[in-house]
Amino acid sequence: MGCPVGIGPEIILKFFAAHPAAGDFLPVVLGDPGVLVHTAAVLGLPARVVAWRPGDEIKAGTIPVRECSVLESERLQWGRPDKDTAGAMAGYIEEAARLISDKVLAGMVTCPISKAALRLAGYSYPGHTEMLAALTGADRYLMMMAGDRLRVTLVTIHEPLSRVPALVTRESVTECIRITARALREDFAIAKPELAVAGLNPHSGEEGMFGGEEIEIIAPAIAACGGEAVVSGPWPPDTIFHRAAAGEFDAVVAMYHDQGLIPFKMVHFADGVNVTLGLPIVRTSVDHGTAYDIAGQGRADCSSLQAAWGLAARIVANRMNRVS
Amino acid sequence: MGCPVGIGPEIILKFFAAHPAAGDFLPVVLGDPGVLVHTAAVLGLPARVVAWRPGDEIKAGTIPVRECSVLESERLQWGRPDKDTAGAMAGYIEEAARLISDKVLAGMVTCPISKAALRLAGYSYPGHTEMLAALTGADRYLMMMAGDRLRVTLVTIHEPLSRVPALVTRESVTECIRITARALREDFAIAKPELAVAGLNPHSGEEGMFGGEEIEIIAPAIAACGGEAVVSGPWPPDTIFHRAAAGEFDAVVAMYHDQGLIPFKMVHFADGVNVTLGLPIVRTSVDHGTAYDIAGQGRADCSSLQAAWGLAARIVANRMNRVS
Repeated sequence: MGCPVGIGPEIILKFFAAHPAAGDFLPVVLGDPGVLVHTAAVLGLPARVVAWRPGDEIKAGTIPVRECSVLESERLQWGRPDKDTAGAMAGYIEEAARLISDKVLAGMVTCPISKAALRLAGYSYPGHTEMLAALTGADRYLMMMAGDRLRVTLVTIHEPLSRVPALVTRESVTECIRITARALREDFAIAKPELAVAGLNPHSGEEGMFGGEEIEIIAPAIAACGGEAVVSGPWPPDTIFHRAAAGEFDAVVAMYHDQGLIPFKMVHFADGVNVTLGLPIVRTSVDHGTAYDIAGQGRADCSSLQAAWGLAARIVANRMNRVS
Repeated sequence: MGCPVGIGPEIILKFFAAHPAAGDFLPVVLGDPGVLVHTAAVLGLPARVVAWRPGDEIKAGTIPVRECSVLESERLQWGRPDKDTAGAMAGYIEEAARLISDKVLAGMVTCPISKAALRLAGYSYPGHTEMLAALTGADRYLMMMAGDRLRVTLVTIHEPLSRVPALVTRESVTECIRITARALREDFAIAKPELAVAGLNPHSGEEGMFGGEEIEIIAPAIAACGGEAVVSGPWPPDTIFHRAAAGEFDAVVAMYHDQGLIPFKMVHFADGVNVTLGLPIVRTSVDHGTAYDIAGQGRADCSSLQAAWGLAARIVANRMNRVS
């Protein structure tokens, strides 16, 4: 459910209102039933909230909720997380990881949390992804932004730009290429993925004139990944995302957050999905934040949540097909 | 004409073939008549090349060329600049700057050159822009990428990413905002421009968690520019370009090359224009390179040249209207 005082409850209600009653997989909410009922009442949204416990049948057409918190929903203030809402929020994530590890649930789709709220709850993780990596014992994980037209993975994520060059190493680039190639094969069922790797510098360094990382680091990393996929680059960053969005590549490996996220959001502003690669569990996420400024106003858009659900279902199915 | 063995001659021929015979301004080519005639013959393009000298009337429906070089066009190799083609190329630029300073011509639209060719000609400029700044004695100039939907200016241009943070200073950001605001008013005739300034770090630093430049440098620079325009920011880089392209702002000030060029090329891949702000002369440029790999094949697209011509004409007209 994400942060209870963000737009999570609202987009969940809108998601269920639009969700087809049948399908290969059925959604359950790990969150706070009272907050959902309260949100529905405030916003005039339908909400057939029913209690769900591990092992219960999931009834299509309802909003089955695993009760992970009992917040005093009347007293909550939209956009103002406190210690109680923050602790509850962290609990939803922990319960989700537990139920998936126990094979009760097949995967998770996360609604937005805020780093500030995580800190209120006593955690120092910069985000959801790092917390889930710790909970599932994954030490090599990766953020992919995925949409119909463009997929992007990031060698570095939440780092100051000044730290990026030092973090772009042969090891980090190689690892990012490998995890991306594997995910394209296994999670996206692309038999022979074509992967473009972006340079770090303008014009990809233009033969060393504007930086040497392409020659010293990125090209050797690409050369080391020949068997994983058709891997090419380093490409000039200012044109490679356009080419990928036009269909030339299955994904682009970007060196830093904004290099990948800027073009991704130009194409998939409302319907992008954040997928965590390299975790033992399937996890997708909406690609927007808690939007505290519009929480509780009925203006939130559930497109990204719908897309995140669709992709999680597809990845779970692809992994099942491989196993069977 | 740009580099004679790049796609410059071809896009000039295509441009004239598509150009209306009338208009407020008429184009002349500073280049090599023989190369144009040869290119036209090879590619089967029309070419009514006529000699033009300063003071001559410009005849619409022809391709008037100021002869700045007499290369042996039969011996030229597409995509292979040599000392002769490089020296000729530099001469076109110098002659253009001269004729504009002498008020014979009103402005210039440049076809692509390569840095490698500039070096062959004995110049160490990283590009056209820096050469023109030196030729016209401009010490505060700026690159703007302009299109119908998005305009972007850059605080730093052709720098390795590792050097960018040190070059983003209160002075450089303030100067970029001021030059951009002035150009929007004077060259684009926008009475009260709305200008968005991007942050440097992911999420614009998220209150200092991922870098402090937004708080220490960019916000104070914005505060210092209040009177120039409606200036806002620093905005998270991954969403501000989408918002600007949707019409919220007249331009975005980007901190580095790829931060601005990646989103610009997502929107204006073929029809973008590079405008140099802060020069005493009007100068626009195609926003693509020499494309040596496809030179002489007839595959080049003159959309960017057409857009660059249109914008140069508009800027010249706006400046004339201000003066009169």
